[in-house]
Amino acid sequence: LTSHPEAIIVLPRHKIMKMSVLQEINPNVRNMKPLEYSILAGRLSQIKEELRQGVKKPYQEVLDVYMGDPHKGGVKPLSFVRQVLAACLYPQLVNSSKLPADVRQRAQRLLGRCDGGSVGSYTATRGIPETLIRVSEFITRRDGGVPSNPENIFLSPGSQWSLSILHVLLNPESSPRNGVLSPVPCHNTTTMSVTGLGAVVVPYYLSEEQGWELQVEELHRAMESAKGVCNPIALYIVNPGNPDGHVQSRKSMQEVIRFVSERKLFLLADEVYQDYVFGENSEFVSYKRVLSEMGPPLSDTVELASFHSASKGWMGECGLRTGYMELVNLDPAVMKHIFTMFSTDTCAPVLGQIALDLMLNPPQPGEPSYPLYHMETQNIKNTLAGNGKRAVEVVNSLPGLCCQPLEGGAFAFPKVYLPPSFIQKAKEAGLEPDTFYCSRLLDEAGLLVGPGTEYGQKEGTYHIRFCILTSAEIMEEVLTRLTCFHKQFMKDFS
Amino acid sequence: LTSHPEAIIVLPRHKIMKMSVLQEINPNVRNMKPLEYSILAGRLSQIKEELRQGVKKPYQEVLDVYMGDPHKGGVKPLSFVRQVLAACLYPQLVNSSKLPADVRQRAQRLLGRCDGGSVGSYTATRGIPETLIRVSEFITRRDGGVPSNPENIFLSPGSQWSLSILHVLLNPESSPRNGVLSPVPCHNTTTMSVTGLGAVVVPYYLSEEQGWELQVEELHRAMESAKGVCNPIALYIVNPGNPDGHVQSRKSMQEVIRFVSERKLFLLADEVYQDYVFGENSEFVSYKRVLSEMGPPLSDTVELASFHSASKGWMGECGLRTGYMELVNLDPAVMKHIFTMFSTDTCAPVLGQIALDLMLNPPQPGEPSYPLYHMETQNIKNTLAGNGKRAVEVVNSLPGLCCQPLEGGAFAFPKVYLPPSFIQKAKEAGLEPDTFYCSRLLDEAGLLVGPGTEYGQKEGTYHIRFCILTSAEIMEEVLTRLTCFHKQFMKDFS
Ligand SMILES: Cc1ncc(COP(=O)(O)O)c(C=O)c1O
Ligand SMILES: Cc1ncc(COP(=O)(O)O)c(C=O)c1O
Repeated sequence: LTSHPEAIIVLPRHKIMKMSVLQEINPNVRNMKPLEYSILAGRLSQIKEELRQGVKKPYQEVLDVYMGDPHKGGVKPLSFVRQVLAACLYPQLVNSSKLPADVRQRAQRLLGRCDGGSVGSYTATRGIPETLIRVSEFITRRDGGVPSNPENIFLSPGSQWSLSILHVLLNPESSPRNGVLSPVPCHNTTTMSVTGLGAVVVPYYLSEEQGWELQVEELHRAMESAKGVCNPIALYIVNPGNPDGHVQSRKSMQEVIRFVSERKLFLLADEVYQDYVFGENSEFVSYKRVLSEMGPPLSDTVELASFHSASKGWMGECGLRTGYMELVNLDPAVMKHIFTMFSTDTCAPVLGQIALDLMLNPPQPGEPSYPLYHMETQNIKNTLAGNGKRAVEVVNSLPGLCCQPLEGGAFAFPKVYLPPSFIQKAKEAGLEPDTFYCSRLLDEAGLLVGPGTEYGQKEGTYHIRFCILTSAEIMEEVLTRLTCFHKQFMKDFS
Repeated sequence: LTSHPEAIIVLPRHKIMKMSVLQEINPNVRNMKPLEYSILAGRLSQIKEELRQGVKKPYQEVLDVYMGDPHKGGVKPLSFVRQVLAACLYPQLVNSSKLPADVRQRAQRLLGRCDGGSVGSYTATRGIPETLIRVSEFITRRDGGVPSNPENIFLSPGSQWSLSILHVLLNPESSPRNGVLSPVPCHNTTTMSVTGLGAVVVPYYLSEEQGWELQVEELHRAMESAKGVCNPIALYIVNPGNPDGHVQSRKSMQEVIRFVSERKLFLLADEVYQDYVFGENSEFVSYKRVLSEMGPPLSDTVELASFHSASKGWMGECGLRTGYMELVNLDPAVMKHIFTMFSTDTCAPVLGQIALDLMLNPPQPGEPSYPLYHMETQNIKNTLAGNGKRAVEVVNSLPGLCCQPLEGGAFAFPKVYLPPSFIQKAKEAGLEPDTFYCSRLLDEAGLLVGPGTEYGQKEGTYHIRFCILTSAEIMEEVLTRLTCFHKQFMKDFS
């Protein structure tokens, strides 16, 4: 056996390999902007390695609040959810008296819906049929009785994945190209996916001064701006907002619905943060509900996809990678094509499907697991609201930082003033100014937050984003590190 | 609140909805052929419902061996895998003396690699860094020392998902279109994905008479056939074969490698069935290993992606939805784009990542879990080999059915002779003849198998596919039902 130890490590750059010629790969993929995170993640690994090797730094470990990842931020998983999932994986536990009776019953019932009684079997393409019914029942309850048809529910490996419905809607051959109206700032991977599918991202700007409100005139402006560039076919909305933390009012949603109806746009409502609402006068209402309330002809013509995810809710099980999408008012023929596209991937992770079922059907008063479940979720709820308040308070006490009031979501997205001399330094380092700010914050204070560039922002403004769905202790530490660093930063650059 | 109970159930067919106009959706998606499975699955649900309602049938329950889904077919999950996963989900179990010490140690070690010590956190895009190292160590061991770089490993939500690497390689704007050489018969969802991405499937036929051998002359013929139609950029191979059960020889693989090198094709090696080899003179050798053995210039130029999956191996955890892909000889610039595309999806399911780690690094002799693990896996191994032998024996004893010797994989794919009068009936029913055969087999014998149409077959020939990775009891029952049905069928139609 001749082995070539370097064969795949040292790449033969001198050889002309057909696929290696960059021009030949899918130009849409080439146009996808890599995550700023990659830059910072590289530095993060280095720092972690240095700390491991005993290099002295002003901090003992790095705090990473870049993503919306509650468990990473010290939020504890919900006992009930974990107990049921563990029992489904290892059914001997169903007979263990150590687990509450309702946990064991649930596990048994859920396993009964899995082929061969195992979470290791594939399920139907759209998900376990009974789980689809549970999801639609949840939606109906949530929406005050507006009916939901299980046939319109698709479970998928993460709500991000569900956005591949765009693959059905976007015609790569249309000329001009298809466009998708997307907010600025915006959950970043969505805009990447749109680009990757060969469509044009048409930005509409949320109004920072108005607490990141969505203003319908801005949607009209965005449509105008698309003229001659692309043919917009969909509007993407994140409510409650990521990264902005705004929660839309019913009135604003009604305006949006009229707008998409007039302009014949498909409405993509990313509602994964629906549980995270803590603004005093804020309330989450689903687009489906508002649409239904508006009555015909709108309620039976506007085409809508709504997304939710097991990564969110109080359980925050991001690692299970499961979400659902509900489709409203789609033509059955189009539904068939969506089904065919989803069927190439067999099914969503089964434990995630089960977790989604648990998230939408939590223990009820009177059941053995209820008291603990209630306490745990209330704690997380209160912590999130407290963290939100505290973050705004601390950030707004710092010179050059300004955060709009937070009403919901899992993030704070304050504006940060960056002095010209710093911007100059960033240019020299070959980084976006706010990425450079984040990179110094990481180096000097051991705190990893996201730069506004990652999410989009009005030209000439800079922001940082950090997750507020953490434990209260971690939030305090995050704010302390940010405060220390930022005060020194303002001294250094003024 | 005005609610509209029928809003999404009764679809307003008379309204012209922009996206509903079929011509406007992505024509590539429109070209995707729906699974034949959808037709049979509809009937399957009906039958299950009828049985539930007490309708009398010659069987008490349906046996479904359509897919390669071992747990559904009565194969038991591996205790070690389930114990570690349960302990990772519910860490209280790590302290439970009921679980073997090595299980608890593993769980603790694996949890230590998860952010926040929770499987509910997102991981790095390509997967948990330590798991990537474990995967590459496994590959190196498997390939007799050929090195594997963890940086070339991507974990994903199922090996099918990994094929979205095609999204990077296929240029939707190229003219003529890109093509992918794919076997006939072939794992069906791959060809669907190729079509969905706007590329052309260029069929090459495996030689049934030669036990489904891949013949290199046929690859040349396929290339010729593409002239004027498309520009082939990749060759897709399934080894061990699905649905055909052939295991390629080293010599055949060398020929394939020379062929892709000459023709400058990207080699996609679907090697998910690598553990399932039971032919007397068969052995699984990876394409990476053969490539390495062939030395330069081939070994450092041929671009290769190899796939494996947690759905396969002895644990067969299909429901966890995790696979890996190793890339060989790709240009670093292309790697970056692949990374960017993968990063839109955050990461693979974490429990699946952990399961993959366990699958590739099973308990070793001397460890407490080894004896049980060894027994369980040996049982499955022996059962698979026994089922394979038995299936061929029984099938070949039936008139009009003929199965090539099986060397590996999880399926039997016998040819079935369908009389002209039956083909006529199928036409009247609006079904493909072999789908019609399967539909009657389902109705009359309560046995669900796949029609050859689903996987592709030489014009004028018909086949059925069924999973042989089941318990021995279920295999016997499958063969009994098939025998009964088929004998009657031959009587009825001759
Ligand atoms: C607005 C929004 N949509 C979707 C997602 C993706 O969630 P999932 O983990 O279900 O893919 C996120 C994740 O942070 C998000 O912020
Ligand atoms: C050849 C082949 N590749 C890939 C897959 C998909 O496996 P996964 O469950 O990892 O998506 C299958 C599933 O049966 C298969 O047969």
